[in-house]
Amino acid sequence: MTPLMIESEANARFRRWKRLALEPRSVKREGAALLEGIHLLQVLAEAVRAGRGPRVEALILNARRAAGEACALVERLADLSGARVFLLENRLYKTISPVENGVGCMAEMALPKGASADDLRSGDVLYLDGVQDAGNAGTIIRTAAAAGFGAVAAGPGTALLWSAKALRAGMGAHFAVKIAEGVPIEDFRANYEGRIYAADAGGGEDVFKAADFADGPCCWVMGAEGAGVSERALACCDARYCIPISSGVESLNVSAAAAVCLFETVRRRSAKA
Amino acid sequence: MTPLMIESEANARFRRWKRLALEPRSVKREGAALLEGIHLLQVLAEAVRAGRGPRVEALILNARRAAGEACALVERLADLSGARVFLLENRLYKTISPVENGVGCMAEMALPKGASADDLRSGDVLYLDGVQDAGNAGTIIRTAAAAGFGAVAAGPGTALLWSAKALRAGMGAHFAVKIAEGVPIEDFRANYEGRIYAADAGGGEDVFKAADFADGPCCWVMGAEGAGVSERALACCDARYCIPISSGVESLNVSAAAAVCLFETVRRRSAKA
Repeated sequence: MTPLMIESEANARFRRWKRLALEPRSVKREGAALLEGIHLLQVLAEAVRAGRGPRVEALILNARRAAGEACALVERLADLSGARVFLLENRLYKTISPVENGVGCMAEMALPKGASADDLRSGDVLYLDGVQDAGNAGTIIRTAAAAGFGAVAAGPGTALLWSAKALRAGMGAHFAVKIAEGVPIEDFRANYEGRIYAADAGGGEDVFKAADFADGPCCWVMGAEGAGVSERALACCDARYCIPISSGVESLNVSAAAAVCLFETVRRRSAKA
Repeated sequence: MTPLMIESEANARFRRWKRLALEPRSVKREGAALLEGIHLLQVLAEAVRAGRGPRVEALILNARRAAGEACALVERLADLSGARVFLLENRLYKTISPVENGVGCMAEMALPKGASADDLRSGDVLYLDGVQDAGNAGTIIRTAAAAGFGAVAAGPGTALLWSAKALRAGMGAHFAVKIAEGVPIEDFRANYEGRIYAADAGGGEDVFKAADFADGPCCWVMGAEGAGVSERALACCDARYCIPISSGVESLNVSAAAAVCLFETVRRRSAKA
């Protein structure tokens, strides 16, 4: 099918993309998100090919600037998904692109169905308790997927996980885990069959010396930058663990702390296996 | 001393701060950097008080917007360091501030003397081999300090470690480690008495199962986002280790990988102690 050219700011599709790009809350309202760049579109293509991808609503090329690689990838995605290709006038494209000098390709995807109560009942889960920075949240999703955790749940006050910034930091990991937003910790606690651990810089047992974890499914709770895990979430945790850090600094970045806790779990399991 | 008001863009000090804020390379050329916000200025004050801080060249308040907390902190820093306080007209302040709605305080500091050959001869070192994102580089410095690593060295091609973005991500850890930029890996190798390990997503032994490390001082080499540790750096390493990751994702973010490798070193040592 011939790509459709869009040159007017008044175009309804363009206005929709502009909302998705510039108003993070519209992502949830409209149930769709924009992906930008070669890497994310490659991961999307792989997920669609394997039958576990989200629905691709539209493919977007910068009419003037799209590189050959970008065009070829979009063509492949169009074949795989049946989505229509749109050529966007350069100035319009730049309005909705999250990067300044990108390769000129994007996709609009429908948000996948969120993780169900079943997905959040058993198995390993990462719970974001008010992590505010979308870059941190995306990096943690990537770490969770790399550690083999199947689901990421986020409580109120956490950054939007399908924003452009979180998607970019996730590097495609959003398609490798189940994601649920707006899950109150009490609801999660009531439903979850595994043990829940707080990664708490404020106290708890040394995560490297603690005896009893990683024996069954577990959920790690990561708290907000600065404030840490909330009292409300702590009340729902089975145990608190801290990472032993040197006296010269106050704390680790929350995504670094998540990497340490999740891979300490991986290490303990592989040591037992 | 009464604060000096600066209202003109032509003011030489303001022009210097503007260069430092907007032209990352000028930080090195001028041997100075700008710090913004309560947390960084608190850490700076603590370092100055303890006699291990850098020289404070100037203190800057947003004349219209500085909050009471910011004013009090700047006053304390002025007492501790003897640096002069400047009130910057709101529009000028916004030109040089790295954040949009900050509390309105900054400090200009002289770059500390870089790590010497002695600092990079023994002890634990983190080597950045072309890590390009300043946020990642700053987060890794924070992780290195938290893991008790005393020095961070960066090879050519690495982000500037004293840029506003790297300083913000470092959260004050820049004052807890020795930092050396522009260190060729071969020079480091020739001088270093410990063992050098590559954190290499591309191969090597499982970092959790490998037998022989953490016995003495060591240096972890973290590679560029995407490309990983360079061939040139690999040639200088004693061993390569990889983090075992799940099949659904390609790799970890480099700052997450650094957290895993550095704290695996911490864990092994504490297990032996």
